[in-house]
Amino acid sequence: MLSKTYTKYIQSLHHKKFRDVEDAFIAEGSKVVMELLTSSKIVCEHILGKADWLNENEPFIKSHYKGPMVIVEDFELEKISALSTPNQVLGIFKKLQQGSVNVTGQISLALDTIQDPGNLGTIIRIADWFGVTNIICSDNCADIYNPKVVQSTMGSFGRVEVVYNNLVDFLNHNSSVPIYAAALNGKSVDELKGLKEGILLIGNESKGISAEIIQMATEKITIPRFGMAESLNAAVATGIILSHLR
Amino acid sequence: MLSKTYTKYIQSLHHKKFRDVEDAFIAEGSKVVMELLTSSKIVCEHILGKADWLNENEPFIKSHYKGPMVIVEDFELEKISALSTPNQVLGIFKKLQQGSVNVTGQISLALDTIQDPGNLGTIIRIADWFGVTNIICSDNCADIYNPKVVQSTMGSFGRVEVVYNNLVDFLNHNSSVPIYAAALNGKSVDELKGLKEGILLIGNESKGISAEIIQMATEKITIPRFGMAESLNAAVATGIILSHLR
Repeated sequence: MLSKTYTKYIQSLHHKKFRDVEDAFIAEGSKVVMELLTSSKIVCEHILGKADWLNENEPFIKSHYKGPMVIVEDFELEKISALSTPNQVLGIFKKLQQGSVNVTGQISLALDTIQDPGNLGTIIRIADWFGVTNIICSDNCADIYNPKVVQSTMGSFGRVEVVYNNLVDFLNHNSSVPIYAAALNGKSVDELKGLKEGILLIGNESKGISAEIIQMATEKITIPRFGMAESLNAAVATGIILSHLR
Repeated sequence: MLSKTYTKYIQSLHHKKFRDVEDAFIAEGSKVVMELLTSSKIVCEHILGKADWLNENEPFIKSHYKGPMVIVEDFELEKISALSTPNQVLGIFKKLQQGSVNVTGQISLALDTIQDPGNLGTIIRIADWFGVTNIICSDNCADIYNPKVVQSTMGSFGRVEVVYNNLVDFLNHNSSVPIYAAALNGKSVDELKGLKEGILLIGNESKGISAEIIQMATEKITIPRFGMAESLNAAVATGIILSHLR
């Protein structure tokens, strides 16, 4: 049985303010929790799961994690879960120290005000698919420790370095690396095939890249359009562009 | 002031069962409603908007729609909206008669059990971007008239023909057209550049394409992976593959 205090503690981690104070976050679902347990960088504080799930996965968990495991009932999991349909397991993990990224000699992503947690998580998963290991988020992007972000990364979370920064400052400090801005009126993505170094800049879901930042771009790049849609979803555009660079 | 009965009628359209009975659906938000009003195929039954919005957009609306417009207050919009953050306007539209699609001589999409409404809407928007005008959904895909699907198409809704069918029957009836199945172990998408005719088959978000259907594929195709992610989101994969065919 979970205590009221502990239930409240976990619920508080649904909110950024408390994740920052507690330096912790939650991850839910068998796949995501198990991927994070195998990550060498991420430390697990606590595993709370349904009896069946813990039973079935105990050998795997114990080979990656030595801390406490707690059996929770359905109604308890519903209380602490941030999902509308709670899964079998919820893990509490320590936030990572923000590292630094080196954008020289590789492809990196810079995100200007990606606000939808599902989009940010999907972009992290796409980066992981294409072997991009650096993502620089503007300070007003969604929080990577938001439960919906963690969920939609599907476990790619521990393999991609995500840092938050003032994008203008960051790009100024790394001005030797070319910046390719995803826009509606640029060079076709096809022309960038085989690119070895560059920062791919992706803008906000409805407003695109801010004026101050887009003027720092070395080149604007575009996904050729054959129909009538006004735009593509930010995560879809990221996937398409990265697939053409590789 | 909306009557109780009318409020209940609109709320009933949040559910597929009643959309089927009433042969109507709702669309929300300025952009989506205005795009649907300009569609030559889709008939609007009713516009309900906030006073400011109706005032500002009256000339545009009247040039595309002759029916009733009703001013609603915030609290009324909250009651009838299917969104967590209601927008300025909600429109009630007639469902389209299911048409037929001709897959000869062009690229079409076939979706096997795409269940997430956001994914289905995003796929419709991607199809519209790449000039794909036919989508065949298996009977157990999400409903295109689900408010979340309508919302995430961002107006591409009226420009793409979506039909529901038993996929096995449909593919059997169109066996002269090659079928390309998105899978993890196929030919690289790069090799299909310039394809003029084919049905691109996309599978369920977690289970992929069902065994019965994947065996009907002419060829399996794959997005080359450079990192560690296990899979890509179904809508992202659709966008990447279509961008390489064009």
